[in-house]
This record gives sequence, structure tokens and C-alpha cells, in this order.
Amino acid sequence: MEPVHTELFSHSVQHVLDLVGIFVFAISGALLAVRKNYDVFGMAVLAEVTALGGGLIRDLIIGAVPPAAFTDLGYFLTPLIATTVVFFLHPQVERINTTINVFDAAGLGLFCVAGTTKAYDYGLNLTASATLGLATAVGGGVLRDLLGNEVPSLLRWDRDLYAVPAIVGATVVVVLIKFQALTPATGVLAVLCAFALRLLAMRYHWRAPRAWHRRTTAAEELHL
Amino acid sequence: MEPVHTELFSHSVQHVLDLVGIFVFAISGALLAVRKNYDVFGMAVLAEVTALGGGLIRDLIIGAVPPAAFTDLGYFLTPLIATTVVFFLHPQVERINTTINVFDAAGLGLFCVAGTTKAYDYGLNLTASATLGLATAVGGGVLRDLLGNEVPSLLRWDRDLYAVPAIVGATVVVVLIKFQALTPATGVLAVLCAFALRLLAMRYHWRAPRAWHRRTTAAEELHL
Amino acid sequence: MEPVHTELFSHSVQHVLDLVGIFVFAISGALLAVRKNYDVFGMAVLAEVTALGGGLIRDLIIGAVPPAAFTDLGYFLTPLIATTVVFFLHPQVERINTTINVFDAAGLGLFCVAGTTKAYDYGLNLTASATLGLATAVGGGVLRDLLGNEVPSLLRWDRDLYAVPAIVGATVVVVLIKFQALTPATGVLAVLCAFALRLLAMRYHWRAPRAWHRRTTAAEELHL
Repeated sequence: MEPVHTELFSHSVQHVLDLVGIFVFAISGALLAVRKNYDVFGMAVLAEVTALGGGLIRDLIIGAVPPAAFTDLGYFLTPLIATTVVFFLHPQVERINTTINVFDAAGLGLFCVAGTTKAYDYGLNLTASATLGLATAVGGGVLRDLLGNEVPSLLRWDRDLYAVPAIVGATVVVVLIKFQALTPATGVLAVLCAFALRLLAMRYHWRAPRAWHRRTTAAEELHL
Repeated sequence: MEPVHTELFSHSVQHVLDLVGIFVFAISGALLAVRKNYDVFGMAVLAEVTALGGGLIRDLIIGAVPPAAFTDLGYFLTPLIATTVVFFLHPQVERINTTINVFDAAGLGLFCVAGTTKAYDYGLNLTASATLGLATAVGGGVLRDLLGNEVPSLLRWDRDLYAVPAIVGATVVVVLIKFQALTPATGVLAVLCAFALRLLAMRYHWRAPRAWHRRTTAAEELHL
Repeated sequence: MEPVHTELFSHSVQHVLDLVGIFVFAISGALLAVRKNYDVFGMAVLAEVTALGGGLIRDLIIGAVPPAAFTDLGYFLTPLIATTVVFFLHPQVERINTTINVFDAAGLGLFCVAGTTKAYDYGLNLTASATLGLATAVGGGVLRDLLGNEVPSLLRWDRDLYAVPAIVGATVVVVLIKFQALTPATGVLAVLCAFALRLLAMRYHWRAPRAWHRRTTAAEELHL
């Protein structure tokens, strides 16, 4: 099926934004590899998978093969640059962790909006498009944690909200599409919405609730 | 490639059966999330992946993109309903574990038959169709356990037979197809066959053997 | 898209080589299942996934659906034969571990060359083709370790080089393609190149470096 092209941003602007998102996601992959004591190839694999995995899953599902990750050389090389940086400078990189988290929040915002738009361009319905926007934004991180043999940090209750900002960003996009109001300006608004929400979640340690009775039980245990 | 349509059941009957299978599989995903102490979004992710993952793998392999999981709103919403139920009532849900296992066995039967039929409709040979029927039935559970950072319960020797009933169900379907005897009636028979086998495996704790010498070694250790 | 056919070897020679590679990869999958105490179905699943997983990932990404793993009965049956061998003879199989590793190195060489060639035939650029050659060679092993709930041995620093020989083999192939010098003879050379490199890595325990400061820190700890 020939995709429609919802040109949200000009192609070159979109490309630069994509590369920024890919770079910061790759940094988080390479850093996990260092923490897990992997070698430099393990670092490169985790950097590539974290940065490109979410978009890869989306492209396989919407039938956009070969996926963008395999047709754009810049997408492939950026994680290798991130790997090199972390290889030589990882203590310094760890030290600016807060800065990285801010960029990661920006990547989250960009990817959920770009992912939703691309899925819609390929003819998926609004709910499916938003779901794939979420998958684009968080899929790479889940694959990173699987390859690191860790519980996916996305799913853990003791982490600040990560999925919710992406869900909100993707939802804003599909609402804009529904009311034919998706323009570069409103698209940026959706990105900023997800970005700001993630920053607030980190600042105030917002968490999502766990299943009901577990908390009651915990409280009871305390009273014993 | 344009798929043939082996209309096993009328479309609406098939749809209701699918939703029942999706619901019980989603319950098992959400329950694992509760046990792993995940938050409500982790519950929803595990519910969706467990319920739709097997069919998603099948659809990607046979080239049915976008997969059914992303085109049918009911498929997407059912796991969220299951998540809501488990969120508020998980102790009660755990208590009716046997009932759930019976429904899960029904889901196993339905999915292995529906998966085999769909793969054959897309032009795969009989062996491949049966393999994909098995993948449809058990794939979601394997992805659930991977996301839960657990050894896939499908592969463990100390669990009652789970793959075998699905293999038998899928095999019955391809034999029926080969002899051009697949009708709604014989299709139901294949479902019931897998369903009954799984119930018997749970009732009598049927297990599959492990590699030969390991057991000998264990016996020797006992004699020391 | 209709693929070009870079007939590297005659079809029947290629097929035999593929089956040899599939067999040895399947052995390594079945052996991990035995070590993890999985039952005979777990063994078969790990054998199939290890042997066919890398090619499956490649075929999904290049859009070659249904993947070769599902259209060629020999590809499907070979891992089951490997499972049967390991089931009855695994202590003997473990004892000839070195022999198996040599065959595995041969499989690595064959798969990285065949994977690169196939990806190029489907129109991917040279970098992407080499990456998919690597993925074909190592992807099955990574999926095996994920299903075994282990840290992927590919990524661990304390294992002899495994990715590098495959990267070298795939790179040789794309250089040959670029200079229009890929013939059966030079193709064999690329296979032997990867094969020899892996043998040397095993013989001399070549390892890849980890991130820089980690080693410094380890040295400092020693001095304290």
C-alpha cells in the first residue's frame, strides 16, 4: 500500500530531530552495556537496538520493509558514534545523567509523535496509530532491557512515569488528526506536551499505581 | 498474495471465540504482572502482549500486515478490560485459578486451530501451517514470560503438558485439510481435542520427558 | 520487489551447506535446553529457534515472507533430528564440545555470507546487507539465550570473539560486491575468512575490550 505523507516537519528538520532522538536512546543502551560489563560489541548492539528497535517493530507491523533503520545510513551510524563516546567517556557521561534524561525525554516526545504519524500514513486506524506511536517511543528500551537480562524498566512500578507521557503525546496527535488540525505547529505542541509531562514525572517522582489489594496487604503487614 | 478464506465458523462466531481466548490469555498476563509487582501500565502491556503476541508473530511471518491485532478494535480493548478486572479483583481472580486454567485451555484449543487455518489460507504448506498454529497458541505466553524476566513456563519440564495439546490440535487440522474434510463440525472437533488433552494433562499432571541421561544421573546421585 | 539472484553456489550445494549450519546451531540450542533442565519440547523449541531465528529476523526485515524457515521442509526437520540426537546422546555430544565448536564456526561463516548475499539480493544497501549478514549469523544464538533466560553470550566480554569474525566475513562480501568480484570462489574465501578468524579467537581466547575506565578502576581497586 502506498503511504500518504503527512509532512509534519520539513524532511530535513524531521531527520535532524530523528538523529537527536536516536543518539540519546543509543547512549542509554551503551550505558546499560557498560553497567552489565559487556564488551564494546555488546555496547554497539545495545546502542543500535535501543535507538532503532522501537521504529523497527513499528515498521514491521505497518509493512514498511525494509525498515527505515536499514535504509538510512545516518540512522545506523549515529548509535556507533554514541557507542564511541560512551566507550571513552562513560564516567563523565554517567555524571551528566540528568542532562541525558532530559534529552531522553525529548526523544520520547519526538518518537511518539513521529511514530503515530507514520503509522497513520500507512493506513492504520487512530487507536492502532497511537499504540504504534507508543511502541516506537518505548520499544527500543524494552528490547535493551531484555538483552540486558533485566526486568524492563518500563514495566516496574518503582520508576517515574515513562509510558504515560508517550501515551498522552500519541493521543494528542490522533485527536489532532481526527479534527484535521495536525500542522507543524500543533505537532510541536504534542511533542512538547509529552516532553513536559516526562520532565514533571521525573521532577516529582510521579508513579503509576499497582493492583489494588497489594497496597492494602502491604499496609496490613505494616500494622502487624 | 490474496488469501483464500477457509470459513471455518461464521465470521461473528469466530470473532466471539477469538475475544474469549484473548480475554483469558490477557488475564494470565495481567496476573503475572501483579505477581512481579508491576504497575498498572505494566499490567496492560503484559495483558496485550500475552493475548495478541502469538497472533502477531503469525501475521508477521505470513505477511498479513497490518496484523489483525492492529485492525480490530475489539482485539485491542479486550485485554484492557481484563487488566481492569485484575487491577480491582486480583485476589478473587487468583482464587478462581482453576476456572481460569480451564478457559485458558479453551483459548489454547481455539488459537491453535484458528492459527493453523489462517496460515494455510495465506498459502503456507501443511507443516508450516501447523507450526504457526502452535506459535499462535503459545507465542503470547512465551513473550509474557520474557517480559516478566522468567524462564518461559512453556519450556520447563516441571509444568503440565501445554505444547502437546496445541500440536495435536494443529495436526488434526492439517490432516483434515489434507483429506479435504475440514468443516465447522470437524474444526470444532479439533478444538475439543486440544482442549480435552490440556484438561487431562492438568488433571493427571502429565509431563514431557527430559533428555535421557539426566534422569539416570539424578538416580545415581540419589544412590550415593 | 522481485529479488535479484546472486547465485553464489549452485542451489543444491547452498542447500546442503545451509542444512549443515542449521544442524550445528540446533545442537547448541538443544544442549542449552538440557543444561537448563527443559523437557523434550523445550529442547525442540530452542533447537528450532537457534537454527532458524537469525534467518527469520533477516527475512522479516527484507520482506521475504513467508520466510525460508517456513517454506523449506528440510530447514524445519533438521533441528528436530538434532534434538533427537541430543536427547539420547547429550553426554557424548557435550564431550565432543570442541568438534561442535568447530562446526559452529563453520556455520557462523556460512550464515554471515549467505545472509549478506540474500539481503543484497532484496535491494538493501551494502551497510544494511552486512548488518543483516551479521544478524543472520548471530541472531539465533541471541534468541536462544533469551529463551534460556541467560545473558546473551554474544554480548559478554568474557567470551571469545564471536561477532567480529561474522562482521569480517560480511564486510568481505560487501567489498566483493562493490568491486563486482563476488564469485563462488571469492564467496568461499569470505566464508573461510570468518571461519578461520573464529577458530583463532577460540584457540587464543581473543576477547574484545570493555569500556575504558572500567579497566582503570579495576586496576585501582587492585592497588588499594
